[in-house]
Amino acid sequence: MDEFALIRKHFHSLAPGSADVLLGIGDDCALLLPPAGEELAVTTDTLVAGRHFDAQARPQDIGWKSLAVSLSDLAAMGARPRWFVLALTLEQPEEAWLAAFAQGLKALAGPSGIALVGGDTTRGPLSITITAMGTVPSGKALRRSCAKPGDAVCVTGTLGDAALALSLGLATQCARFDADREFLKLRLNRPTPRLAAGHALRGLAHAAIDLSDGLAGDLQHLLEESWVGADVWTERLPTSEAFRRLAAADARLAYQAAGGDDYELCVCIPPDRVEQARRKLDVPLTEIGRITREPGLRWLDAAGRPLVVELRGYNHFL
Amino acid sequence: MDEFALIRKHFHSLAPGSADVLLGIGDDCALLLPPAGEELAVTTDTLVAGRHFDAQARPQDIGWKSLAVSLSDLAAMGARPRWFVLALTLEQPEEAWLAAFAQGLKALAGPSGIALVGGDTTRGPLSITITAMGTVPSGKALRRSCAKPGDAVCVTGTLGDAALALSLGLATQCARFDADREFLKLRLNRPTPRLAAGHALRGLAHAAIDLSDGLAGDLQHLLEESWVGADVWTERLPTSEAFRRLAAADARLAYQAAGGDDYELCVCIPPDRVEQARRKLDVPLTEIGRITREPGLRWLDAAGRPLVVELRGYNHFL
Repeated sequence: MDEFALIRKHFHSLAPGSADVLLGIGDDCALLLPPAGEELAVTTDTLVAGRHFDAQARPQDIGWKSLAVSLSDLAAMGARPRWFVLALTLEQPEEAWLAAFAQGLKALAGPSGIALVGGDTTRGPLSITITAMGTVPSGKALRRSCAKPGDAVCVTGTLGDAALALSLGLATQCARFDADREFLKLRLNRPTPRLAAGHALRGLAHAAIDLSDGLAGDLQHLLEESWVGADVWTERLPTSEAFRRLAAADARLAYQAAGGDDYELCVCIPPDRVEQARRKLDVPLTEIGRITREPGLRWLDAAGRPLVVELRGYNHFL
Repeated sequence: MDEFALIRKHFHSLAPGSADVLLGIGDDCALLLPPAGEELAVTTDTLVAGRHFDAQARPQDIGWKSLAVSLSDLAAMGARPRWFVLALTLEQPEEAWLAAFAQGLKALAGPSGIALVGGDTTRGPLSITITAMGTVPSGKALRRSCAKPGDAVCVTGTLGDAALALSLGLATQCARFDADREFLKLRLNRPTPRLAAGHALRGLAHAAIDLSDGLAGDLQHLLEESWVGADVWTERLPTSEAFRRLAAADARLAYQAAGGDDYELCVCIPPDRVEQARRKLDVPLTEIGRITREPGLRWLDAAGRPLVVELRGYNHFL
């Protein structure tokens, strides 16, 4: 089966008819209708086999995660997902692999309301680049650059689950695990982009970023873009029960602050709005620190004393 | 230098301030302002080292061509280029390579009026995915699917130059050649997306496609999408002087009809509008055939007799 037949067969079901898609897969370009009065939010991410995922991982999981990382960026802007294009590089076009990959993509794309509108397939070392587009009412997007001194630093969900799962070697294991390990594996392979939370935080939060490379690195970017600093109370970093049971005490902070792949949101929000935000969200929101006028990111222990630790985000070139 | 510093240093000059870019490189998403009353045209393309270009090719040329293939898709829709995002996967971040790559990108992006608004860099086998976005007034885009029986089939520029250059091994040669070989090498390494031509053909042409995988394959796609056929007069395929002097007679048709990388436009246009179109274009337009009600693509010789040839477009999976 040639390239075009393969695409038609496996990917067309990811392209439901929609009034904002004037022309989808199959022409030189897709033609899309951005809603009047909205801004277009665009993000692109590449996942490379052997780096972002194991080539032996389940193709369903690879499909899901490829889209999840981009949706998480849309979530961090408070944007509504609309369209994506898929650039897929494969060593060998295997039907079973493609079918499962498309199934994983669809499992996330469908409920997220995002339609596949175009793509490119080519032969080479396995990698996936997704460019996702969303829209957000003019002037309402959440940015990294508007955190204010005194803001509460909050995160959605729990931190460190994916990093722990990776260190436990759960990513590509097919065996059924106990409930804790199954939970952690899902957190690594099938992260949930916090789309509803990002949407709900528009108008409440001053700034937001998604946590893909670890809190230490990502929050640092937000602080630099906003020209502020932060104190973070390490004891308050939210943990799942599975994490509490399985993470070695001396590695917890590294998983939670320097590990990547959480795909939670980190938001800066005036303290008097935290409660209101919490009520609007479909996921727990935990206050983990405060934005300070003094630059830098400081990690504090339970007694409020600075910890001497070196925590770094994921560097894509190391 | 870390990833972020490298990007800032080499790619920020590709992101000029522009009223339609509300937020460029550096946040979770770019925020863009699509003009009211226009549709958004989006295309994505991956170039893989060893497949679409030689890893030893000049990085300036790789940069230029990575963008040219996407701009050519925008040209085929008659869209005005606006924004692009760059997903760059590198074995090793070498400053000299990145600087030259960015220079090649900029040499084409600047005059094309397209701004870099975001990207992703990651480590892995060298490949480049660009997603380009343009806009086109509502209902005015050129599509593949609207060719009508009786339309003249026309192409811009000349065909076969890039395929001949590739077969002569000119892609990565640094030596200066004679003028013919220099011309062919430029046609391969620095194709010119026919943006002005695509724009000018709006309202004149019924259908258009860009020639990236060879006339035989690309025209075939257009015919299938339009539910029509075509007769093509092989003697009329436009040739450059360099091509005429250097292409072996028995290989000409293969270079011109089955070779890829032309990045010319193939358009279907009512015969009585061809002259008007020709006057509006900044590049020669040659009538090479006719759209027929009868399906299929037939290659005719100088006497109008069908040639028995098998010509196929580039298959990305072979």
